[in-house]
Amino acid sequence: MAVKTKKFWVDLHPDGDMADVSAEAQAFVSSSGLSAGILTVFSVGSTSAVSTIEYEPGLKEDMLRAFERLAPASIDYEHHNKWHDDNGRGHVRSTLVGCSLVVPFSDKKLVLGQWQQIVVMNLDTSSRKREVVLQVMGE
Amino acid sequence: MAVKTKKFWVDLHPDGDMADVSAEAQAFVSSSGLSAGILTVFSVGSTSAVSTIEYEPGLKEDMLRAFERLAPASIDYEHHNKWHDDNGRGHVRSTLVGCSLVVPFSDKKLVLGQWQQIVVMNLDTSSRKREVVLQVMGE
Amino acid sequence: MAVKTKKFWVDLHPDGDMADVSAEAQAFVSSSGLSAGILTVFSVGSTSAVSTIEYEPGLKEDMLRAFERLAPASIDYEHHNKWHDDNGRGHVRSTLVGCSLVVPFSDKKLVLGQWQQIVVMNLDTSSRKREVVLQVMGE
Repeated sequence: MAVKTKKFWVDLHPDGDMADVSAEAQAFVSSSGLSAGILTVFSVGSTSAVSTIEYEPGLKEDMLRAFERLAPASIDYEHHNKWHDDNGRGHVRSTLVGCSLVVPFSDKKLVLGQWQQIVVMNLDTSSRKREVVLQVMGE
Repeated sequence: MAVKTKKFWVDLHPDGDMADVSAEAQAFVSSSGLSAGILTVFSVGSTSAVSTIEYEPGLKEDMLRAFERLAPASIDYEHHNKWHDDNGRGHVRSTLVGCSLVVPFSDKKLVLGQWQQIVVMNLDTSSRKREVVLQVMGE
Repeated sequence: MAVKTKKFWVDLHPDGDMADVSAEAQAFVSSSGLSAGILTVFSVGSTSAVSTIEYEPGLKEDMLRAFERLAPASIDYEHHNKWHDDNGRGHVRSTLVGCSLVVPFSDKKLVLGQWQQIVVMNLDTSSRKREVVLQVMGE
């Protein structure tokens, strides 16, 4: 049983831009020497998120529209009163989607579906370099 | 410390049907010989989801209505332009709920509440046989 | 490789009250003697949730408002017909946010951002003492 951790950064545009990190994730599993276990993907920061999606431009746009229903850009946020900030919607969206994802692997391969990619999202209102932590644990 | 992985399938109706897999999950923990650790439940496919719920027909209906608020069936989805598909709402709902759940166990028992079941959801617009991966890791 | 489990309770007000458990979580990691691995935080009960947030009063209020968009207090819930209960919205909100969070740690430190706290939420319509399970696994 072993644990290996890797950190890297992705450059993302504001308000729902996402990066497909599936290839990095599988490469990290492959290079770990482990056969079975879990990969944890964690996005650092309270205006980021991690989930799975069929990564194609249409769905990316559909997610932006869903985020607008969940936490619209046009309404007031109490968070703005605290810091004179403008990213209340990004925080709310982050808490709803979550910043952590665990994917099992067996036979050295993540059990993702063919059209199921791992994405890291920047939900802040400015472009951000987002830190991503990959960690494998297994045997 | 050991890792054990099991895959199985559940037949589900379209648009939010769910299966309670708590019994399979606990049985897999019990049969693993492990005393403490984590169970990961992962649903394969970008129009599926895993979460916890009090599994009873009323709440299942309440979830369908909530999904309609999050990602209505009646609106346009950019995803449909890509594949001439009709399941954009299912993808959006899947990304919001998530396809992965980790439940700790100790004394060979999952730490779920009495009214807290593990469910796998089919969010696609057609009936699907959904693949579920269970993996235990612990000692 | 080792597994350690701890259970504790937090007293919470109804309908979206939340407790920042980041300090308990880091203390548990620090006292475990482990250097790298995962911390799992699980909230027991189908009207609770776990996520990350910048923990400050403004965002807490913003989350309550988002929950009202997702699952309003004012609408009917089929769940109420089953138990003559009034907490349908709390169940729906719990299933959407999720009851489980996995955070990696390395060099004995959780990889949370500076403004990213771990919170346990009570989404029930009455005050509740919520059970929280922390479990570390690693080396």
